[in-house]
Amino acid sequence: MIRGLAAALATRMARVKPSAIRELLRLGADPQIISFGGGYPDPALFPLEKLSAVFEQAIIGQGRSALQYTLSTGMPRLREQIAERMARQGVRCSAENVLILQGAQQGLDLVAKMLVDRGDLIITENPTFLGALIAFNPYEPGYLAIRMDREGMDTEHLEEALTEHPRVKLLYTMPDFQNPTGVSLSLARRRRLIELANRFDLIVLEDTPYREIRFEGEPIPTLKSLDTEGRVIYLGSFSKILAPGLRLGWVVAEPELIHELGLLKLAADTQCSTLSMAATSLFLERYDVEAHIEIIRETYRRKKEAMLAAIRGSFPRAVSCTNPHGGMFTWLTFPAGFDTTQFLANEALPKVKVAYVPGATFFPVTEEINHARMSYTTQDHGTITRGVTALGKLVSSFLGDEPECVAAVAEGSRGKTLLQCTTLPRS
Amino acid sequence: MIRGLAAALATRMARVKPSAIRELLRLGADPQIISFGGGYPDPALFPLEKLSAVFEQAIIGQGRSALQYTLSTGMPRLREQIAERMARQGVRCSAENVLILQGAQQGLDLVAKMLVDRGDLIITENPTFLGALIAFNPYEPGYLAIRMDREGMDTEHLEEALTEHPRVKLLYTMPDFQNPTGVSLSLARRRRLIELANRFDLIVLEDTPYREIRFEGEPIPTLKSLDTEGRVIYLGSFSKILAPGLRLGWVVAEPELIHELGLLKLAADTQCSTLSMAATSLFLERYDVEAHIEIIRETYRRKKEAMLAAIRGSFPRAVSCTNPHGGMFTWLTFPAGFDTTQFLANEALPKVKVAYVPGATFFPVTEEINHARMSYTTQDHGTITRGVTALGKLVSSFLGDEPECVAAVAEGSRGKTLLQCTTLPRS
Repeated sequence: MIRGLAAALATRMARVKPSAIRELLRLGADPQIISFGGGYPDPALFPLEKLSAVFEQAIIGQGRSALQYTLSTGMPRLREQIAERMARQGVRCSAENVLILQGAQQGLDLVAKMLVDRGDLIITENPTFLGALIAFNPYEPGYLAIRMDREGMDTEHLEEALTEHPRVKLLYTMPDFQNPTGVSLSLARRRRLIELANRFDLIVLEDTPYREIRFEGEPIPTLKSLDTEGRVIYLGSFSKILAPGLRLGWVVAEPELIHELGLLKLAADTQCSTLSMAATSLFLERYDVEAHIEIIRETYRRKKEAMLAAIRGSFPRAVSCTNPHGGMFTWLTFPAGFDTTQFLANEALPKVKVAYVPGATFFPVTEEINHARMSYTTQDHGTITRGVTALGKLVSSFLGDEPECVAAVAEGSRGKTLLQCTTLPRS
Repeated sequence: MIRGLAAALATRMARVKPSAIRELLRLGADPQIISFGGGYPDPALFPLEKLSAVFEQAIIGQGRSALQYTLSTGMPRLREQIAERMARQGVRCSAENVLILQGAQQGLDLVAKMLVDRGDLIITENPTFLGALIAFNPYEPGYLAIRMDREGMDTEHLEEALTEHPRVKLLYTMPDFQNPTGVSLSLARRRRLIELANRFDLIVLEDTPYREIRFEGEPIPTLKSLDTEGRVIYLGSFSKILAPGLRLGWVVAEPELIHELGLLKLAADTQCSTLSMAATSLFLERYDVEAHIEIIRETYRRKKEAMLAAIRGSFPRAVSCTNPHGGMFTWLTFPAGFDTTQFLANEALPKVKVAYVPGATFFPVTEEINHARMSYTTQDHGTITRGVTALGKLVSSFLGDEPECVAAVAEGSRGKTLLQCTTLPRS
């Protein structure tokens, strides 16, 4: 073997480590386990017949081009179609603002590669999407993690953070039905966030894969549509509205930024699958994707209600959960000191065979141990009720339902989290 | 707009620039142009009916899983199938040695991300694959470009370079029908390269997308099969044996390296298209891919012969070309001082509407201006003959066929190229 692989690795690999949680959930991949852990869409909703039809049309009808190389920025017709959908959602854009990605995850990688030098600070919500931290970490940033409440990222706290660290370049946010909390950023705060971005010369990375999966209420304008200075980079995805196995997402940004990202896309993997792009383009042309999304919405809405009903019916009052108006997740907060990782490993998995994602993994700086992310998308109603109830009873048998616990949670959910910040010395 | 986008960009972006050649060839995307420029396989050879059948089977038969997320390392069954094919080609490996990539290009990106710190030196052939330089450049390496001749990378020169720079970690080579030269590394030199890698503790990145497209002679053992210490990372691709639009390649390496690359794959884009992997796996199961490759071989062999015959029949003797025993390219060397970029822009495109890739772009350190890469894969025999002949006549009208030109070329092709090296200061 290579003498000292560790010595051969680039320094950035010190920031690239397997997630203990993923390992734990992999151990929990026992078919008897009821998992609310994965962030997977419901495969029963994949439109198989329609996808088969468009793949056949793409291969037989246009396979000489649909199986060949195409442009790094993506198939021109699909870029147009995405721009048209985005324009209908209030974002002024055309095909030149769009780059096709290998899932929105690739946007997180390429944007960090474009902007982040070692030691640069990235602003995130606290907690934030684990996949974003995984994508950003190889570029060796520090993080400023901004307090959240029911209206999303606290923009007062954001202003304090920016005042203290005025040279931050990049803010990452998932404003709609955030992963992991299910919380959305309010309109007033969106406006405030854009004001602060303009004042502090920030680039804002708006990652919104769940945006179209809204159960109730009116859509809140995207940050991109409120953007007055071309400083928002928007990430969208076909994973939640069509199927993740296609691995297609997109970025919308100013042409200057699309140009740089296109060069990085070429360097990273040449281009996305021409065939997946051609078939998806045909899908958008032949079928009513909005009607398909409406079915996803209604299905997830009912599943979410089943999960929240089961939580209310079986968990002690000391545990709170968010009520997401869309997306795939609810976020549970346990009394301070309750360690959801230990509880998963020692209690929930072995005793009731139920899995969730311990919340600690979603904190960029200081892990909070008393949260859990639960997804309601893949299990059927009966399994949701059975699994959540078994888990709730187990938690109750641990906690009882003592009033001081309730108080602790109430405080925790409103309480002050100090600005969380890691900085790395610039090399 | 963002105040000073340039200031916001990471320092690595100084190394991420559009290729002037790509721009030039894009201008040449006029349908009247006969292009020998692209590195595209012949789309007439894509097995459309069979691909349509396996995509249908994957979607209708197993779409609930084939359109869902899977493991970052790739679909387990496809990893096994690749390991079995590699084992039949003399590489001891199993599924745990295999990671599925978004084309072999992604392997170039991920291996550099894993190993290369700013200022590290990478050894390449001189000239080398442009896509590798594009992938490596964002990690800000320097290059040591090693002289080539008809047996590939000159291992004497390599030894000199390593003796002078003993701390180099990574050597990149395309040993079979190299892009751009079409030249293969001889068996004796492969053995020598492995000896030197062991002695100097090098990691060797063996990139061999054209390996199976051999026209004549016996396959030369892969570097990976000669590897005695687990220091060769092998990249393979379905792009040239099936279709590039699928965007599937693979890496074979020691499990410790696969582990690190798997973490980077997760960070970069989560995983490859589950559907493309499922369909490709079914293709390998249902159909005789070796028989399909045999058709590709025979087709390209005849096209290569048409191109070489046309070159011999129309170019002046002062221009030499390689006779590749496989792959997609021949490499033309013009008399010293002949600038193929200027000739393309000012003569070949406007006057005879024929395109090639000027060789300068393939040199990592010091550009040599008097070469051209010509691909024979996508044009039919008549167009090859017509386009090459028109180009050859145009070149002849420029050069004449004076004996001093022949002498210059003969010297150029054997001549000493000094060790070419760029170093960047470590930050």
